[in-house]
Amino acid sequence: MSDQITDVVAYMNELGKQARAASRALAAASTGEKNNALLAIADDIDTTRDTLMDENRKDLEAGAAKGLDAALLDRLELTTARIDSMIEGLRQIAALPDPIGEIFDMNYRPTGIQVGRMRVPLGVAGIIYESRPNVTADAAALCLKSGNATVLRGGSEAFHSNQAIAASIHRGLEKAGLPAEAVQVVATTDRAAVGAMITMPEYVDVIIPRGGKGLIERISNDARVPVIKHLDGICHVYIDDQADIQKAFDVALNAKTQRYGTCNTMETLLVAEAVAEEALLMLAPAYMKKGVELRGCKRTCEIIEGCTAATDEDWDTEYLAPILSIRVVDDLDQAIEHINTHSSQHTESIITENITRARRFLQEADSSSVMVNASTRFADGFEYGLGAEIGISTDKFHARGPVGLEGLTSMKFIVLGDGHIRS
Amino acid sequence: MSDQITDVVAYMNELGKQARAASRALAAASTGEKNNALLAIADDIDTTRDTLMDENRKDLEAGAAKGLDAALLDRLELTTARIDSMIEGLRQIAALPDPIGEIFDMNYRPTGIQVGRMRVPLGVAGIIYESRPNVTADAAALCLKSGNATVLRGGSEAFHSNQAIAASIHRGLEKAGLPAEAVQVVATTDRAAVGAMITMPEYVDVIIPRGGKGLIERISNDARVPVIKHLDGICHVYIDDQADIQKAFDVALNAKTQRYGTCNTMETLLVAEAVAEEALLMLAPAYMKKGVELRGCKRTCEIIEGCTAATDEDWDTEYLAPILSIRVVDDLDQAIEHINTHSSQHTESIITENITRARRFLQEADSSSVMVNASTRFADGFEYGLGAEIGISTDKFHARGPVGLEGLTSMKFIVLGDGHIRS
Repeated sequence: MSDQITDVVAYMNELGKQARAASRALAAASTGEKNNALLAIADDIDTTRDTLMDENRKDLEAGAAKGLDAALLDRLELTTARIDSMIEGLRQIAALPDPIGEIFDMNYRPTGIQVGRMRVPLGVAGIIYESRPNVTADAAALCLKSGNATVLRGGSEAFHSNQAIAASIHRGLEKAGLPAEAVQVVATTDRAAVGAMITMPEYVDVIIPRGGKGLIERISNDARVPVIKHLDGICHVYIDDQADIQKAFDVALNAKTQRYGTCNTMETLLVAEAVAEEALLMLAPAYMKKGVELRGCKRTCEIIEGCTAATDEDWDTEYLAPILSIRVVDDLDQAIEHINTHSSQHTESIITENITRARRFLQEADSSSVMVNASTRFADGFEYGLGAEIGISTDKFHARGPVGLEGLTSMKFIVLGDGHIRS
Repeated sequence: MSDQITDVVAYMNELGKQARAASRALAAASTGEKNNALLAIADDIDTTRDTLMDENRKDLEAGAAKGLDAALLDRLELTTARIDSMIEGLRQIAALPDPIGEIFDMNYRPTGIQVGRMRVPLGVAGIIYESRPNVTADAAALCLKSGNATVLRGGSEAFHSNQAIAASIHRGLEKAGLPAEAVQVVATTDRAAVGAMITMPEYVDVIIPRGGKGLIERISNDARVPVIKHLDGICHVYIDDQADIQKAFDVALNAKTQRYGTCNTMETLLVAEAVAEEALLMLAPAYMKKGVELRGCKRTCEIIEGCTAATDEDWDTEYLAPILSIRVVDDLDQAIEHINTHSSQHTESIITENITRARRFLQEADSSSVMVNASTRFADGFEYGLGAEIGISTDKFHARGPVGLEGLTSMKFIVLGDGHIRS
């Protein structure tokens, strides 16, 4: 398949043109039509799951032959449970409220016109992701529900799996009377397809890259289209001197150890000097018992036996591993200063019983999620009630934090009059 | 002044660094502090208006010597009335509600955490604009109210006027206890300053260019920072076959002739075939009486005597002049198709008494403002009740349509718990 495409740029342009046309139809599609398509896709994946697993086996065999490591092969594999969860995801997205067409803030102006806003799709989304075939269905479903056409470019190792899922999506769309071009999966493994996709502002309205930091940085630098991106997750918990120490213990332990490899895991713990000894002497043994390596500032190392000295680099590192950097700070000011200097603007939490401190932290910690007395691990579209999540944005422009259906939409102004003219 | 700065990139980096630091203070500033600063700036401009007019005279004399045309010189001039209106603008912005810190959508989740959102500033805005000194005060005021630091780079012809306004702004900020670096006016006319400003994502969060299409396109292409931009205003009015013909006449005449040089002026009139003769025979003499040149499709030319044939280029042209292109279309479908092909996604209006047609037009016309029975000339931040306007965005990403204070903000998630951890 992929080798049949010789001119990748022309091919991508054609996909883009078709996506733009399909996006018009999707923008005008009713909620019922979109939901019918989502349910038909779910049913189609369910009834053709043997074919899907056969295609996935081709990818797994090619991957093993290529010497992919176990973690990559695991992500690539479509088990029965993963297919079930893909189907369930489609049905859940069908059940979510449709954001499109929502009208709000309608007010009469002194001139007599009535002005408000209407939520509309962005248009065409380009999704670039690693070799996880379930993302094909998830991302397509979120875009479809929010009225956006999509061009999906998954990792080349998942080529056959993605094409099989694309076939189910197309059959589902057609069954619901929507254009098959509303979701297009790039049918070439040529890397030039990515370069083309991110430089077609006439056909693509937003790029959502998912994957390693290197890939995302490259895409952001080269894109001529807005990017919803997520780079690091260097998250902090600050234990204030007016913290409830038991809450501090629970949250700081959970934020680090509930899972190590997620972007909302705490990487640096800040502790107010006044409670540093009490808090750290409780926490250190608990971390060590779980095998967490502790790297601390000078004061921390004085308190915790077995703590190694943190270097400057530690404060700017996303470990994604059982390692934690710890700094004792003078007070809230220094904690906020540390966060706004070293954070990746993902998620920060303060542990305090003092409402004035909590209010200041909420206002001044400049990150996409800011919490009081809660674990950073809650920073997630599902936990926030968005119903689903296409990514977490650490940017401030357009969407910030977990991005659900709303992040895939825009708002236009609508004006109703009765022959009103401007004088 | 300008010639004292030899290393423009280093200078802009310094401004950027100071702006970033000041933006932290502004984000934490209270509504009262920001309002006090705005009122103090207004008072300072009022009491130092003689100095300001002297500095403005220097610019006018230099401009005249350089041979600037009358229109440019007019825009450059700070008359007493314009200074009054600048002062009044500052006071109006002080009187607007503060968008920053607004908390909304707070809901309890099944886990017990409470999740909502808080409106926060974007951070640092870079404004690039033509030689209209009043923009210096307007743009600075909108950014200040929305908690953003600004770096302003006005047209070189207004150099002395802008520096005088900057001095008032700095005195006002200091009087209110806010850092003077919250608003910085670039003190060099070297064009390299623009190139530097739009490629400092570490210091600048958004670029807002105001000026000619060429400038805006260049900035958009070269920027490494998000841009809120406004290119063309190719606006349409569609007269449906179920229009009230008197309303159609009023709106179509007003949308074209109330002012010719504004971006929300209608450039193309679409008329349904069934009412084309009636509508155009009413409208044509009225347009001609006002000196509007009519360029029509074949059918239009059959109806209107003295109409010249429109070329393909006409449908994609923003005249900003007493010229109107007219096309007779079959029906609403063809009107929407024409608009979504040729519009610059600024503003479109349908004239109809039919609610089903109106609903379809509102949903399917893919522009930043979509109207029913109202003149496109209403597309404006003041008319919409935003209180002020920093520009009109024809993009879909982040801000769309007239951009007021809200478009200069972002939203972060806030989470309140009581020691909640994720299980």
